[in-house]
Amino acid sequence: MPHIALNSADPGIRGLLRYRPETARPLSELTEVLLRGPGTLTRGERELIAAYVSALNDCRYCASSHSACAAAQLPGGMAVVEQVRADPGSAPVSAKLKALLAMAAAVARGGRAVTAEHVAQARAAGATDVEIHDTVLIAAMFCMFNRYVDGLATIAPDDPAVYAAGAQRLVTQGYLPPPADPGREG
Amino acid sequence: MPHIALNSADPGIRGLLRYRPETARPLSELTEVLLRGPGTLTRGERELIAAYVSALNDCRYCASSHSACAAAQLPGGMAVVEQVRADPGSAPVSAKLKALLAMAAAVARGGRAVTAEHVAQARAAGATDVEIHDTVLIAAMFCMFNRYVDGLATIAPDDPAVYAAGAQRLVTQGYLPPPADPGREG
Repeated sequence: MPHIALNSADPGIRGLLRYRPETARPLSELTEVLLRGPGTLTRGERELIAAYVSALNDCRYCASSHSACAAAQLPGGMAVVEQVRADPGSAPVSAKLKALLAMAAAVARGGRAVTAEHVAQARAAGATDVEIHDTVLIAAMFCMFNRYVDGLATIAPDDPAVYAAGAQRLVTQGYLPPPADPGREG
Repeated sequence: MPHIALNSADPGIRGLLRYRPETARPLSELTEVLLRGPGTLTRGERELIAAYVSALNDCRYCASSHSACAAAQLPGGMAVVEQVRADPGSAPVSAKLKALLAMAAAVARGGRAVTAEHVAQARAAGATDVEIHDTVLIAAMFCMFNRYVDGLATIAPDDPAVYAAGAQRLVTQGYLPPPADPGREG
């Protein structure tokens, strides 16, 4: 049961976005820019970073949701997502993505855990400065979302079909609330 | 030296906001809503939560900046901020704020570290659901900012006068970039 009385039965972040539309708007915009905006990392790669960090932070709702979003947009689907979550070093992803995932794991431990070594390895594998920037910010953003979602003890459904359906919606419509939804737009 | 080549010599978060205006806009809006928008926690109290979490996360730039913002807006000034950073339990702040600071410290450890006990204590001291929500999200947001700022190894000036001057600007003008500043508006 959530720690506070929400105004809906929506699980995870969805219930929190509906509860506080003033913060929902910039949070949704930030997510849309980082995970779906113009960029040289694919949307599947960005969702994979989100899923990986959320799993490291033990946030079941976010890890399940973004694993489903990554699986829907990555060649290899859920099998690759599960391999990355188990051991990114041996997963069938590019050397660049492996280096960025290692950097994201460092961010989850703390800002000072990201070393010049992490950056040099990412650059050697072809990562640009903007890709390094965005990886650090995506990882940091999920350190926020994971704490927000679990810090208020929101509900995380057990049924994988719930996350798959949510991913289908996010992949096609994105993270911005539809303008016609007064519950989320406030 | 920052891990990536920024487009200014601005320290801390300011250099990152200038580097990536697409993410700067929602980040600034989120900060403005949470730290300065309408609410029953004073602006000084909210800045104090930000400073405390940033200190726990060992982020010198954010801790210095938000300590200066809290000191400028709290009765008791920097002396109270320093007492809270050293030991919130014995600092001269309200029982409600002590309970919210304990909750914020739990958020810094991880979302699952926030217990029903933390929430019950905050409620017993008079905290509302929105205050509990905002405390968790402010703490979570600084777990993001601290990792963003240190994960990219931005510069943290040594001179306290730099942070005091920055605080003066933030206290009077807020976190949204001025519309006339093309460098931050992109």
